[in-house]
Amino acid sequence: MSKESLNPLIIAQKQIKNACDLLGLEESVYELLKEPMRVLEISIPVQMDDGTVKVFKGYRSQHNDALGPTKGGIRFHPDVTLDEVKALSMWMTFKCGVVGLPYGGAKGGVVVNPKELSNDELQRLSRGYIRAIVSIIGPNKDIPAPDVNTNMQIMAWMVDEYNKIVGYNSPAVITGKPLIYGGSKGRTAATGYGVALMAREAVKRLQMDFKNCTSAVQGFGNVGSYTALNLHRLGAKIVAVSDVYGGIYNKDGIDVEKLVEHVNKTGTVCNFEGTTSITNEELLTMDVDILALAALENQITSAN
Amino acid sequence: MSKESLNPLIIAQKQIKNACDLLGLEESVYELLKEPMRVLEISIPVQMDDGTVKVFKGYRSQHNDALGPTKGGIRFHPDVTLDEVKALSMWMTFKCGVVGLPYGGAKGGVVVNPKELSNDELQRLSRGYIRAIVSIIGPNKDIPAPDVNTNMQIMAWMVDEYNKIVGYNSPAVITGKPLIYGGSKGRTAATGYGVALMAREAVKRLQMDFKNCTSAVQGFGNVGSYTALNLHRLGAKIVAVSDVYGGIYNKDGIDVEKLVEHVNKTGTVCNFEGTTSITNEELLTMDVDILALAALENQITSAN
Amino acid sequence: MSKESLNPLIIAQKQIKNACDLLGLEESVYELLKEPMRVLEISIPVQMDDGTVKVFKGYRSQHNDALGPTKGGIRFHPDVTLDEVKALSMWMTFKCGVVGLPYGGAKGGVVVNPKELSNDELQRLSRGYIRAIVSIIGPNKDIPAPDVNTNMQIMAWMVDEYNKIVGYNSPAVITGKPLIYGGSKGRTAATGYGVALMAREAVKRLQMDFKNCTSAVQGFGNVGSYTALNLHRLGAKIVAVSDVYGGIYNKDGIDVEKLVEHVNKTGTVCNFEGTTSITNEELLTMDVDILALAALENQITSAN
Amino acid sequence: MSKESLNPLIIAQKQIKNACDLLGLEESVYELLKEPMRVLEISIPVQMDDGTVKVFKGYRSQHNDALGPTKGGIRFHPDVTLDEVKALSMWMTFKCGVVGLPYGGAKGGVVVNPKELSNDELQRLSRGYIRAIVSIIGPNKDIPAPDVNTNMQIMAWMVDEYNKIVGYNSPAVITGKPLIYGGSKGRTAATGYGVALMAREAVKRLQMDFKNCTSAVQGFGNVGSYTALNLHRLGAKIVAVSDVYGGIYNKDGIDVEKLVEHVNKTGTVCNFEGTTSITNEELLTMDVDILALAALENQITSAN
Amino acid sequence: MSKESLNPLIIAQKQIKNACDLLGLEESVYELLKEPMRVLEISIPVQMDDGTVKVFKGYRSQHNDALGPTKGGIRFHPDVTLDEVKALSMWMTFKCGVVGLPYGGAKGGVVVNPKELSNDELQRLSRGYIRAIVSIIGPNKDIPAPDVNTNMQIMAWMVDEYNKIVGYNSPAVITGKPLIYGGSKGRTAATGYGVALMAREAVKRLQMDFKNCTSAVQGFGNVGSYTALNLHRLGAKIVAVSDVYGGIYNKDGIDVEKLVEHVNKTGTVCNFEGTTSITNEELLTMDVDILALAALENQITSAN
Amino acid sequence: MSKESLNPLIIAQKQIKNACDLLGLEESVYELLKEPMRVLEISIPVQMDDGTVKVFKGYRSQHNDALGPTKGGIRFHPDVTLDEVKALSMWMTFKCGVVGLPYGGAKGGVVVNPKELSNDELQRLSRGYIRAIVSIIGPNKDIPAPDVNTNMQIMAWMVDEYNKIVGYNSPAVITGKPLIYGGSKGRTAATGYGVALMAREAVKRLQMDFKNCTSAVQGFGNVGSYTALNLHRLGAKIVAVSDVYGGIYNKDGIDVEKLVEHVNKTGTVCNFEGTTSITNEELLTMDVDILALAALENQITSAN
Repeated sequence: MSKESLNPLIIAQKQIKNACDLLGLEESVYELLKEPMRVLEISIPVQMDDGTVKVFKGYRSQHNDALGPTKGGIRFHPDVTLDEVKALSMWMTFKCGVVGLPYGGAKGGVVVNPKELSNDELQRLSRGYIRAIVSIIGPNKDIPAPDVNTNMQIMAWMVDEYNKIVGYNSPAVITGKPLIYGGSKGRTAATGYGVALMAREAVKRLQMDFKNCTSAVQGFGNVGSYTALNLHRLGAKIVAVSDVYGGIYNKDGIDVEKLVEHVNKTGTVCNFEGTTSITNEELLTMDVDILALAALENQITSAN
Repeated sequence: MSKESLNPLIIAQKQIKNACDLLGLEESVYELLKEPMRVLEISIPVQMDDGTVKVFKGYRSQHNDALGPTKGGIRFHPDVTLDEVKALSMWMTFKCGVVGLPYGGAKGGVVVNPKELSNDELQRLSRGYIRAIVSIIGPNKDIPAPDVNTNMQIMAWMVDEYNKIVGYNSPAVITGKPLIYGGSKGRTAATGYGVALMAREAVKRLQMDFKNCTSAVQGFGNVGSYTALNLHRLGAKIVAVSDVYGGIYNKDGIDVEKLVEHVNKTGTVCNFEGTTSITNEELLTMDVDILALAALENQITSAN
Repeated sequence: MSKESLNPLIIAQKQIKNACDLLGLEESVYELLKEPMRVLEISIPVQMDDGTVKVFKGYRSQHNDALGPTKGGIRFHPDVTLDEVKALSMWMTFKCGVVGLPYGGAKGGVVVNPKELSNDELQRLSRGYIRAIVSIIGPNKDIPAPDVNTNMQIMAWMVDEYNKIVGYNSPAVITGKPLIYGGSKGRTAATGYGVALMAREAVKRLQMDFKNCTSAVQGFGNVGSYTALNLHRLGAKIVAVSDVYGGIYNKDGIDVEKLVEHVNKTGTVCNFEGTTSITNEELLTMDVDILALAALENQITSAN
Repeated sequence: MSKESLNPLIIAQKQIKNACDLLGLEESVYELLKEPMRVLEISIPVQMDDGTVKVFKGYRSQHNDALGPTKGGIRFHPDVTLDEVKALSMWMTFKCGVVGLPYGGAKGGVVVNPKELSNDELQRLSRGYIRAIVSIIGPNKDIPAPDVNTNMQIMAWMVDEYNKIVGYNSPAVITGKPLIYGGSKGRTAATGYGVALMAREAVKRLQMDFKNCTSAVQGFGNVGSYTALNLHRLGAKIVAVSDVYGGIYNKDGIDVEKLVEHVNKTGTVCNFEGTTSITNEELLTMDVDILALAALENQITSAN
Repeated sequence: MSKESLNPLIIAQKQIKNACDLLGLEESVYELLKEPMRVLEISIPVQMDDGTVKVFKGYRSQHNDALGPTKGGIRFHPDVTLDEVKALSMWMTFKCGVVGLPYGGAKGGVVVNPKELSNDELQRLSRGYIRAIVSIIGPNKDIPAPDVNTNMQIMAWMVDEYNKIVGYNSPAVITGKPLIYGGSKGRTAATGYGVALMAREAVKRLQMDFKNCTSAVQGFGNVGSYTALNLHRLGAKIVAVSDVYGGIYNKDGIDVEKLVEHVNKTGTVCNFEGTTSITNEELLTMDVDILALAALENQITSAN
Repeated sequence: MSKESLNPLIIAQKQIKNACDLLGLEESVYELLKEPMRVLEISIPVQMDDGTVKVFKGYRSQHNDALGPTKGGIRFHPDVTLDEVKALSMWMTFKCGVVGLPYGGAKGGVVVNPKELSNDELQRLSRGYIRAIVSIIGPNKDIPAPDVNTNMQIMAWMVDEYNKIVGYNSPAVITGKPLIYGGSKGRTAATGYGVALMAREAVKRLQMDFKNCTSAVQGFGNVGSYTALNLHRLGAKIVAVSDVYGGIYNKDGIDVEKLVEHVNKTGTVCNFEGTTSITNEELLTMDVDILALAALENQITSAN
């Protein structure tokens, strides 16, 4: 498979083209959907703790707002690109559409490794990002949320910055805030819980027995851990889990409740009692009934 | 010379880097200036005369507004790219700065060959472009103007669209309007007149005699024709002129007043009485004292 | 009855005067209610398909907003007048008031025969109307809706135009949109269903037996057809129906379900199997228990 | 001459039609100009000194803003009609246009006899009028001014009301304010001075000798008195003057400087020493070289 | 107890300090909470019925909006001070917080004895107050309500003034409006009802028998009367009640239903049949199980 | 003289009362002018360099905007009080009025000793102050400027913060900016130059000879140094100068040009060659023709 084909924008466009063709839609529908209606690219100057100024590149892509305000997370990652942000915003339109939500798709990103920033620097970057996009977001326009490497604290800074600029408390501008600050209960666990439920339903449709299924989960961040935990609680057997440090395997199933405690203590799934080490590559090519991908996109290619 | 080095953004960044280094400025100044503070990328759906809808990609780049609202033209051209628009907006900052105007730099562009559009389609595209960028322009924010392939009529449509959206007559939002609609006298001739004056001053500094200088002018659109005309009127000898159809040459000088009449009649400089045909390439490598480039950027490379 | 007395504004003013007198209200209440608080009269230039420009006159009348934003339809009809639009807006205030809705009354109209316009011209007129009244409408100010000769498609164009001007998706600005675009379920059938229910309740109060009542319905558009259908479904006997092309009669009752199919096929109630032809005038003076008027106002005069 | 033909709107439309025909303009230009782009009709409730509430009808007509914000006076008069206000706004467009001012035409009016109101009631009416039209006026939109029966004090109340609503001091919203409040020097005398200058120039073009011309001035309000005074100062002989109470005549010329003092003392031109009484009708049909009309419109008809 | 210690601001600050210390919060939390984030002090010119102008001083204090728009009443009283308004706004933050409402605290006041104003003057003052604070209130910012000496009628004037300025009907800006104008059912009785319920719960926690409790209520305005009425209805024995004119006592209990009728007729609790007169001071030091204070603050001091 | 009488608000009110009485104005004029129309009191949380948060109290007083936007400096000083800020804003109204500027008076202040803050903390405080008052300032509303302890750098931070919030470059919001950032030439020297010119004119009116006058200048900051320098340049003899560290004296006159150099080097006027030391008190009671006070207010009391 060629390098080109992993460009998420091209993948997203192909998916839309296929869907339009299957639905027999006129050409102009594809034309309208193949690119976001609006993408803002910004430079965010941040004063670092040592007094110097660094400038970070950020994006906010709004794909289509025909059915309501756009909605989508903000990603802080050194590999963020314009095309990735565009593609993610396009997928958000379709995610909202298939479940009938009155929202369009959006996505944002900043090219930064947040682990290299102090807490104060991260706050200044988060506030600077909102300042730069403030004119195109709002409860009626576009509603950001957390994504890779952004969390409730960052959302709280962002809402506070938005409030300072508009001059009043507007919690509806961003979701994923801390509970005390107007956040939604259950939000943290929701994505992983949804993945687990969907896996159960998919298995049902394939007329397999969920309780007899073996599962592997790639990634053990917010999404991965709640996916594994809920698959486990729903009765599936988790035989393998991995994170950025490596993977673990137990053919008789891993006790995910205990694994969570282990990760809280050690920071990684590695070396969890009663499991053997595997590589991430081994996990991806393992013979399991359910393979849950909860890391970054483009993990399954012709090379696997 | 490699392909890469003709990317206008990279060229502009190198120029800024050199300037910062020469001025001994701290690193953060270059960091702030090396990218525009804000670039909006938009999709513009346009209903064509045959009832179908085409979607055009457009950009508006605002480099830096520290000294005032940003300012810069809008280009309609099939070769418009994000990097080109960014670079052109950066150069606008410096053009304004060196003459002490309280403006920053901006530039816009639409990927379109306007010659393939009917007048009505062009109007709808122009209005659609303004609708898509309306929230980031305005007399206090960013003031567009004509550029390659956009003219007074297009500016009039754009101002009218802006007025309709904000709800009142706001002529200050765009320059380059028709005179009757609030345009500035002399604007059409201004760029070419400035090029001619600058050439005269440059020649003076080199202690050459302007009246004895030979000149060649590449391009005979708005800028090129007024450059040639004013060089001629100021006393220089124009020996060669070219446009997209070809070039003409007369070692004793071309009567530019008459050439203008010829172009008005025939649409090209070619076949002007008393001149011989040359290629554009010949013009660029000709031995003249003054070579005025009034077409697109990147004409002079190591290949010439 | 004199011509004057059919002026809807004068009729509405007399009704308000009577009501104020009956309620013993002070003079100033009538003074406040006898005219709308605000009427906007506008000229709407529309580019026709042949390139010429026609200018249409439009109105938007807002009678009184003491209890909430004003609300009322937009009528496209060649006979629209300032006084009619005013009167209709006044009646809307009272319609909302008697059922306790937190809305005031409004109404709009354009002097045009929409059947003489192409679909594209109709779209441009609809968008032009919204552009011209945009500053006085909005979810908190005044909320238009369909009326005579305007439908869901026209509402969709109008909402889209409003959204483009305010810069975000604001479906609450207009009701009567297509379902997929945020419209309300059941809206199309609602008016006629309400007329039928009200007829049943009126008959009850008169201590007549609804099942034994004979009905005639003038008009078979949106309101008339659902009125007839629901009277029929609720058990009343429909003996006569008319539309702009003529009327039909069957003393034993018309099967309205089948009549709807007939109209969908032929475009008129005329020539429906098992009925005899009557004139509209005959229908209006027929001896029936329930006479439902679902065409335009002023059908019952001293002349009938 | 029929009654109809005195309708100012029909007169104005005929003038525009004639002008368009003479200029050979396409039909759509006349279509665009024959009606104002926007007319707001409002009801203004005013608490009277005795505690009751009266409701006054007011208008603001904006004819065309293609060349800049619209501009025009506000008239308080019992005979104000929708058609009159429309026509006056149309004439303002052309008055601005012929002298090259970047303004369009507007006009406002309230149906009221201000002489029947106390000062406090007049203030409340003036403020109520501005509240009702505030969304369509402003320095960039439409700039009112005094007209028949409105003066500097009324403009001051109106500006103050506007300022209170927008939240800051915005003197540019209305012209004709008191000097101390940002008014223009010379404004009061300007209209009459202009009439006198124009008369002098007209006489010149007719190759008559201005110093030998006899003049009659109908009206001695703001416009009439300054017209007479300036004609007098420029050397013309004023033989007749009238106001609402009657007229005066002196074949050898009236000393207007002294007449002004007389009017300041007695409130009327009548009984001015050295003159004989005439009727207004006699003045209008008198044999003079210059007849200045400074009362209301439609004084010269086929009946004179 | 020194005079100083009755300053409500100092009392409120001590309470916050104590709470912060008990909770072990860092110093900056107290720093943030010890003063309102924003206090507006305004001068309100009011035209009196005799034509003169008086200027009243008003305040609006907004303590903290971290959890939502601020909320709190407007007090008209000659003893209103900056410090009192600040303290009351701080207490509102905590009142909202302890019951989990998404509101912060605010309070307003005008230094005026409303009993010395006519109804018209009171209306003009109420409207003037809103004009002066309009930029800092709104459904998303700060939502006023009635307090001492302000009622539903005053709230209606204030909402109407707010609506006039923003240009549309916005009932959500102020609570405590008349029911017909969008007010909440039960609001008038709510505070007193809450006091009675809380007394019952407090008694329960102290393991006393509510039905055997004796109560005294200071004040018989809105809060006091509904407190007494509800204590009575819930079964407690009211032995003493007072208002600004004096107090009444009956050791066997007062029939509050009848007392309300008495007050409606006579305007005071004094001379209610079957009771003996007491002073306010006697009421405050009386031996009762429940003492409800429903007058102004600072009634209980070391002096009692 | 009693303490009370040094309260600047009471002093300012007395001055206005005297002026109103002398002018025979009606009582309501004094009522309107005796207090500012609007004062905002704010709490400004600032993150200190050590991570803690301090909260500073700030004020912005706007006295009267009848003649235009209000205007006045921002003072950073530990002794700032509400009454002082009010009084200073009142004096600004009269300063603007006596020279006919279309501005009203305003003043702001923060209770802080800026010398105890780092440069970063000062920047955060300055930005926080603007955030807190942003809704009541602007080129049309109220235009701040430097005052005691605030300078061009602080104004630049404030303008930048304002620009960030409103979303575009708005240099007109604050005066006293650095030249490169849109500041006015000559602003720094203007106040002192004005004092010197006024002294010369005052001396002229007293029919004294300016060249023979002796002068003493209290204070050698921005105002004092330019006052001394310009008195010197205009020909007066400066015999004494003081600053916070002490005073200097030379009966034959001090060379102020050289004194400025001395101060630039040493930071104080003390120990300037050729002068003898004096106390500030001696300077104030010295026998000179011109005594210029360029420190804080209330230097001349009955105690001197």
